[in-house]
Amino acid sequence: MRDILPQKMILREYVIGVIRQVFESFGFEQLQTPAIELEETLMGKYGPDAERLIYSAGHEGGKERLALRYDLSVPLSRVVAQYPDLIKPFKRYQIAPVWRAERPQKGRYREFYQCDADTIGSASMLADAETLNVTYEILIRLGFKQFVTHLNDRKLLKGIGQYAGVPAEQSAGLYRSIDKLDKIGLDGVIAELQKNAIPEAAIDRMMPLLRVEGTNREVLAWLGGVLAGYPVAMEGIAELEEIRGYLEALGIPEQFCRIVPTMVRGLEYYTGPIYETIVEEPKIGSITGGGRFDKLVGMFMNRSIPATGTTIGIERIIDVMDELQMFPPEVGTATAQVLVTRFSPDLVTESLRMASALRQAGIKTEMYFDNDSLGKQVGYADRKGIPYVLILGPDEAAAGRVALRNLRTKQQVTVERAQAAVQIESWRASMH
Amino acid sequence: MRDILPQKMILREYVIGVIRQVFESFGFEQLQTPAIELEETLMGKYGPDAERLIYSAGHEGGKERLALRYDLSVPLSRVVAQYPDLIKPFKRYQIAPVWRAERPQKGRYREFYQCDADTIGSASMLADAETLNVTYEILIRLGFKQFVTHLNDRKLLKGIGQYAGVPAEQSAGLYRSIDKLDKIGLDGVIAELQKNAIPEAAIDRMMPLLRVEGTNREVLAWLGGVLAGYPVAMEGIAELEEIRGYLEALGIPEQFCRIVPTMVRGLEYYTGPIYETIVEEPKIGSITGGGRFDKLVGMFMNRSIPATGTTIGIERIIDVMDELQMFPPEVGTATAQVLVTRFSPDLVTESLRMASALRQAGIKTEMYFDNDSLGKQVGYADRKGIPYVLILGPDEAAAGRVALRNLRTKQQVTVERAQAAVQIESWRASMH
Repeated sequence: MRDILPQKMILREYVIGVIRQVFESFGFEQLQTPAIELEETLMGKYGPDAERLIYSAGHEGGKERLALRYDLSVPLSRVVAQYPDLIKPFKRYQIAPVWRAERPQKGRYREFYQCDADTIGSASMLADAETLNVTYEILIRLGFKQFVTHLNDRKLLKGIGQYAGVPAEQSAGLYRSIDKLDKIGLDGVIAELQKNAIPEAAIDRMMPLLRVEGTNREVLAWLGGVLAGYPVAMEGIAELEEIRGYLEALGIPEQFCRIVPTMVRGLEYYTGPIYETIVEEPKIGSITGGGRFDKLVGMFMNRSIPATGTTIGIERIIDVMDELQMFPPEVGTATAQVLVTRFSPDLVTESLRMASALRQAGIKTEMYFDNDSLGKQVGYADRKGIPYVLILGPDEAAAGRVALRNLRTKQQVTVERAQAAVQIESWRASMH
Repeated sequence: MRDILPQKMILREYVIGVIRQVFESFGFEQLQTPAIELEETLMGKYGPDAERLIYSAGHEGGKERLALRYDLSVPLSRVVAQYPDLIKPFKRYQIAPVWRAERPQKGRYREFYQCDADTIGSASMLADAETLNVTYEILIRLGFKQFVTHLNDRKLLKGIGQYAGVPAEQSAGLYRSIDKLDKIGLDGVIAELQKNAIPEAAIDRMMPLLRVEGTNREVLAWLGGVLAGYPVAMEGIAELEEIRGYLEALGIPEQFCRIVPTMVRGLEYYTGPIYETIVEEPKIGSITGGGRFDKLVGMFMNRSIPATGTTIGIERIIDVMDELQMFPPEVGTATAQVLVTRFSPDLVTESLRMASALRQAGIKTEMYFDNDSLGKQVGYADRKGIPYVLILGPDEAAAGRVALRNLRTKQQVTVERAQAAVQIESWRASMH
């Protein structure tokens, strides 16, 4: 776990702000759930390996078994079941910490934020297309230029298994091996499938399907021809074709969204379209992931409700943007835009009033408190990254003026008090 | 603990937004600390009654004793000690949940947010005056009209005890009794002091000091006369007089800030000025509290660092503003401003493009996903509180136009597609 100090918080808040803005521009609404859930709510949802990482919580005399949330999807599903009157579709976003007791390593934190947007209560592929649209919009606005969302469908995967003749009880292992294509290559996948006793004939029959290439439209057309006799595959293909059409209508270039029949995603609860976004330049790998999970909510109530959504891997995005200095110039290093210095004690109230006037004019203004030399005060602004300094000494006070120093350009001007805010705004504007 | 559903989150985010804006306008910078702290960090800071309410946390194989934070001040003090290079003064704000296993009751939550702004590393009374200025600004901007901050100084209290002749070892009990003046009246305080074996002569000598009335300037002048021989009291009075002068310079009317020599505040770690704000209309009692705590940081390192700040009682503020409908009209009931309906399947892509165009124009736009009747779609917007609905049927599509319905005024207009955003903005503007 870690503390995030102010300079890094400014970057973090910028990223969160962009994500929130995009979520809200699509009408996603914010939900807040408590950090602590009943242990029974979390258990049996993630699989035993994950559940070992869940933090327990408790207090003196407490009788219930409590735990810290492991993600935001299970609490969402609980909420949907617990408040049956929620108007559907329920489009919610949540940006909040989750806790996992993973072995510490670089870039992995035991407390980290998830950014989720999900649509509960619509089976329409429009909801899935929107999820992809949201992801695209966020990455573009953050300044990423080369990324691609891999799109697949669990139904298509199931159909491929049927077509190849892989017994249903071996399908989990089949998916796990296929998913490694990117890492271990086609030969590696074949070797692993053989090791897992998938029949040789099945492997041979499947291979061309895993190697298919072309535009999204071509890939779907070709798969549709081969898998015509397998209804579940055709359902998946129809879903993907529908999404493809919506993305085209939205003007999202195909380079940003590719249909990849070998992409699997680990979580067992996905039921339809699945997606995963890989940032290729800078090379940081998978950064968002999601899909349709029509059966998860049903684990908390007596009927299932269609659902789809995505998680944005915000910690990784922030780290990379920071490393590569991808932040726009208006994202500063300090919150305050100007430091109002203090001169002799008899001029303190003048400085105080000046600071107040700047705040009224909408400028974030820090007042220097201690009776230090002007040099020390300016040095403080400089070290903190506050770009402008206001000086109000006896000469300025007598003339009803103030001196303003731009610490970046070293420029200093003297202006009427009422003009100080205007001068600062003009410096700010010329910086961008 | 509780879930906060979207309609309430909108109100909550509004209040948090105002508080953040004010904090940042004074140059306070955001800090994030983890929810989980080492247990030893928290223990020995709040007193045994409070520490019984702390939640423990743990995980399989974990060796350290962990706990969920109880407030934001102790983690702040830990951070200041842990990062000695932090530039001082370190002005930080944090708006984050804390956890306390209190007995559940109306308006009390086991997970609740604290909003803290503190200045670490300045002994100047300007920092204390600023804290009061921040509180004033927040409450005014939120729409509160009748509130008052009670201002006192621990040094003055100490001096009053010395003047009255109360033995130092009885002073904690003395403060506790004095603090109840508002609740139990002067006679009640006297009875309690007698019960606690405070000498009768001390009580008699103290009474006039507790009954002092007048303007802040008068109260301080009178106390200064009586307590002239007690240096610690005079130090406290000088601090209060300095703060009073700054508040006057800032133009904060005296009705909003009264010097109240009987106000004590419970926490033992305060060392100088202390403050507590009471909202009188609506009558909701104490809503912020803080003061100078020059010795708390010293509990984590080998030297003490001056510090002062306040907590804003945000949960109570939100509850009251909600009950009394104190939110401005632009704080809506839904995130989306317009619902784009869908007509027949062949018109879906038209609707999709229209929704996209509205978002590009800065309008928060929800697209209806499912193939339902127009009546059901409009009903959905109505139930959710989305104020405007866009309809794109075959007639409109053929004419390159869209119909816009204002669900509040029942007005419906048909406009060119490119004019839809303008029409919505004009409706929005006329609403406020």
